[in-house]
Amino acid sequence: MPANGQGEINVDESESYSDTLASSEDEEAACLSRTIERSFTTTTLPADKLATIESLPSKRDHEAFFRECIDIMLREAIFEGTSRRTKVLDFKQPETLLKLLDFDLKAQPSSHSDLIKSLKDVIKYSVKTGHPYFVNQLFSSVDPYGFVGQMLTDALNPSAYTYEVAPVVILMEETVLREMRQIVGWPNGEGDGIFCPGGSMANGYAISCARHYYFPEVKTKGLHGLPKLVLFTSEDAHYSIKKLASFLGLGTENVHLVNTNSQGKMDPDHLEQLINTSLENGERPFMVSSTAGTTVIGAFDPIEKLADICKKNNMWLHVDAAWGGGALISKKHRNLLKGIERADSVTWNPHKLLTAPQQCSTLLVKHKNVLSEAHSANAAYLFQKDKFYDTQYDTGDKHIQCGRKADVLKFWFMWKAKGTSGLEQHIDKVFENAQYFYENIKQRPEFQIVIPEPECTNICFWYVPESLRMNSTEEFLDKLQNDGEYKEKLHRVAPKIKEKMMTEGTMMVTYQTYKEKPNFFRMVFQSSGLDKNDMLHLIQEFERLGQGL
Amino acid sequence: MPANGQGEINVDESESYSDTLASSEDEEAACLSRTIERSFTTTTLPADKLATIESLPSKRDHEAFFRECIDIMLREAIFEGTSRRTKVLDFKQPETLLKLLDFDLKAQPSSHSDLIKSLKDVIKYSVKTGHPYFVNQLFSSVDPYGFVGQMLTDALNPSAYTYEVAPVVILMEETVLREMRQIVGWPNGEGDGIFCPGGSMANGYAISCARHYYFPEVKTKGLHGLPKLVLFTSEDAHYSIKKLASFLGLGTENVHLVNTNSQGKMDPDHLEQLINTSLENGERPFMVSSTAGTTVIGAFDPIEKLADICKKNNMWLHVDAAWGGGALISKKHRNLLKGIERADSVTWNPHKLLTAPQQCSTLLVKHKNVLSEAHSANAAYLFQKDKFYDTQYDTGDKHIQCGRKADVLKFWFMWKAKGTSGLEQHIDKVFENAQYFYENIKQRPEFQIVIPEPECTNICFWYVPESLRMNSTEEFLDKLQNDGEYKEKLHRVAPKIKEKMMTEGTMMVTYQTYKEKPNFFRMVFQSSGLDKNDMLHLIQEFERLGQGL
Repeated sequence: MPANGQGEINVDESESYSDTLASSEDEEAACLSRTIERSFTTTTLPADKLATIESLPSKRDHEAFFRECIDIMLREAIFEGTSRRTKVLDFKQPETLLKLLDFDLKAQPSSHSDLIKSLKDVIKYSVKTGHPYFVNQLFSSVDPYGFVGQMLTDALNPSAYTYEVAPVVILMEETVLREMRQIVGWPNGEGDGIFCPGGSMANGYAISCARHYYFPEVKTKGLHGLPKLVLFTSEDAHYSIKKLASFLGLGTENVHLVNTNSQGKMDPDHLEQLINTSLENGERPFMVSSTAGTTVIGAFDPIEKLADICKKNNMWLHVDAAWGGGALISKKHRNLLKGIERADSVTWNPHKLLTAPQQCSTLLVKHKNVLSEAHSANAAYLFQKDKFYDTQYDTGDKHIQCGRKADVLKFWFMWKAKGTSGLEQHIDKVFENAQYFYENIKQRPEFQIVIPEPECTNICFWYVPESLRMNSTEEFLDKLQNDGEYKEKLHRVAPKIKEKMMTEGTMMVTYQTYKEKPNFFRMVFQSSGLDKNDMLHLIQEFERLGQGL
Repeated sequence: MPANGQGEINVDESESYSDTLASSEDEEAACLSRTIERSFTTTTLPADKLATIESLPSKRDHEAFFRECIDIMLREAIFEGTSRRTKVLDFKQPETLLKLLDFDLKAQPSSHSDLIKSLKDVIKYSVKTGHPYFVNQLFSSVDPYGFVGQMLTDALNPSAYTYEVAPVVILMEETVLREMRQIVGWPNGEGDGIFCPGGSMANGYAISCARHYYFPEVKTKGLHGLPKLVLFTSEDAHYSIKKLASFLGLGTENVHLVNTNSQGKMDPDHLEQLINTSLENGERPFMVSSTAGTTVIGAFDPIEKLADICKKNNMWLHVDAAWGGGALISKKHRNLLKGIERADSVTWNPHKLLTAPQQCSTLLVKHKNVLSEAHSANAAYLFQKDKFYDTQYDTGDKHIQCGRKADVLKFWFMWKAKGTSGLEQHIDKVFENAQYFYENIKQRPEFQIVIPEPECTNICFWYVPESLRMNSTEEFLDKLQNDGEYKEKLHRVAPKIKEKMMTEGTMMVTYQTYKEKPNFFRMVFQSSGLDKNDMLHLIQEFERLGQGL
């Protein structure tokens, strides 16, 4: 038995290990009775004391510091930070913030009290992305189970490459990805998938898979000497398609942009024309990247028609459902993605509509082996084949990352907590909220709709200040079309309101242009913690901020 | 003032917001007095109650659940999980683990008590990567300040693309990256840099930057029609160079591997030969990726000589210091990377030698604009130019990720806590430990050294069981070279010991082959929480596990 009198820790199944301990009797044995704090790395004590282990803070010191930090985080970042009674942000200009918060890194350690001050300052000047009125991006809110899952990931700090190092995480990934593929509609959830650091990366993997599927020699020989490979996506698609095509050596100009209709959906006829032109020009079209839930207006491309075109032309169909994928989980809304089971690959980010913490993105692939075949390198030092367990569970080699933070645990924990039915109700609720918001602003003369009959939870509108208000929507649209000065004035309204909302900190909603349309706001709902009263509050807040412009 | 009587939350500077609240007097005003729990998303309550906000768990319910989970995590994952008196892991074969832990996702929600059980099971069956005797990968240990910084990141859940959404994080990144560039040796810390999801990705960015530097047209036109671009790295370099070259469309065969010497260092003469041959073959050599701290044996390439060759041949010099970069912070050890200031780019992962939590990787670039020029897409919906602050702080566009988890905060918080001097002492301590371990096993007949005089904290050795033991190192090396059967027997020893250590859970150390050498163990030290007694314990543990083989 261990030579110490600190028996506060009970370890199950430690018999064989205790035996080990018992076998050492000299200096070495003593090392086993040391207290926990010794496994931590160097601390904030004065430099001359660091070499002496005994002078390190005790477990009690660490634990007290941990608990104080955790209390502050829970109180100030989580509970107060997400209260409707607090501000979404305390905006400071960069040069001011650089003075207010002590960013500088110094030669000497900080005291715990200085660290606590830093921690509080970081919270104070950070945007509260979990606040109900943070409606600025395609992520928002704090899911309590997701948050616990995220902390658990941190406490375990795994790297998700081998079963040896991350057994639980590896099996969890397989479980969650299979379930997601099943929801996409692939028989028995067959296929493959990975968690990626963001939807852009997931789209990049999709391009890589598609390329490998038709031109496996790219892996070894590269693109040199191949025909010009081209892909197609809509003009409303996320910019990551072009960005990743460029990173992958294909070039942004070889991403041909297909027109979208007035609802933001890809035009299949134009796609066919572009493919034909491309073939005539001697290019090799190999992929269509469609979008389910476009970034700005939330449009869903007509997947079935695109699948027909891809089939006819022997092309890979990718669906970027990073944003809209969550709708698949709702019987009421999954029709928006009709035909998605015909896709070869799907990007789906649970950190968006399903509100998992940042970041949680997946690429799902219908074909079982292409992810591995395209990306594996069989590094002998990591993916040894002479292990004593089934090494098919060492799934890391299909990623282009080596070390990889485990993004699955938080989502798995949320899913366990809520059940699929809970996730479904969440989705239905946010769609209801969006609809309620839309119906409401449609009635009010201060608002003009950018895209009628929105499909997703993106609601795009102009706030029209009194000085620019028209008597009817028809008159407004006519003015917008024909009066350049009017359009320019309206274009400047959103940035002004945005500045006001940011400096007051009462909410955060983003604005942007779209095609020929001047700056407008995009509300984008993901949090089912909001309700109809919140919708009304947000509307009123626009009215308040827009007064006097 | 807000219409409620719950005054437990004090918010600074809320005056203007309170005024706002005061201005709404009807139904909408009431929404502001709701309690915090409403900002959370749907919960585990029975399905039929979910629609009714009032039935959601109260803040108190959530907080109690949070605190219980946090207590368990701190106790079981952090404090017990890193105690020398507990096991590193409780190994189960995949098929067993699938039965022991309830991975399945169900339609219905789970109760909090079921969730607590899941959480405990996840901890129980996860490898304790923070345990002092987890010496298996190029990351280990729990840094208490890093852990707090990681939790803070989770609590704030920012996405690091714009100043608008992540003001603190953006300024922190600039501060930390500048400081790191200064340590690399670039005047005034000039240049650019990014945090990336892992060192592999950082190396991929380096290739992309180098390619863009010489062939900016790749961004728009792709590689089609260009000469065959080739790069060079050593046979000991990390596999990510090939993997990312493939992803980038260059092809693994266009990564030419340079021989390493007996110490694992790139041979500059062979590099020059390969470059000349490549030029004769009409290829376009554009980059050398050198390594500072190779994965298996921890070798440092001769950067200065490689810089001369790159200069002469107009090529980009990258240093993959993902592993060895930490040594730069030590006056005693930074000489290992002599000449690194001549590099065009450097990969440096604070989550390795500096023990930041997973994951924390950087790419540092000497040239100020190339990251942006190579990767920016100017998405109008995110990087609006008509904002009311200086949009040069919207730094996200130089990344290929869009949404991006903030990896800087944990490292910044650690650095603040310890000071540069604390980080330096940490580095010096782990090098000392490694040296002590090395000197010690050199004396013992059960151990044979694979690479004499190791440069980094990687110590590579064979454990030679009694049945295979020789009278001297000379005899052993001779046998290894000339007796195939002996070599094969020795090759099978490490996997057997590894199996035993995994099933007993007493430590975790990885093994691999290298060049013609059969399986051997690689100790790799990062944790300054270990000391000489731990070194002796680890040695004894090998002796115990190797008995009777």
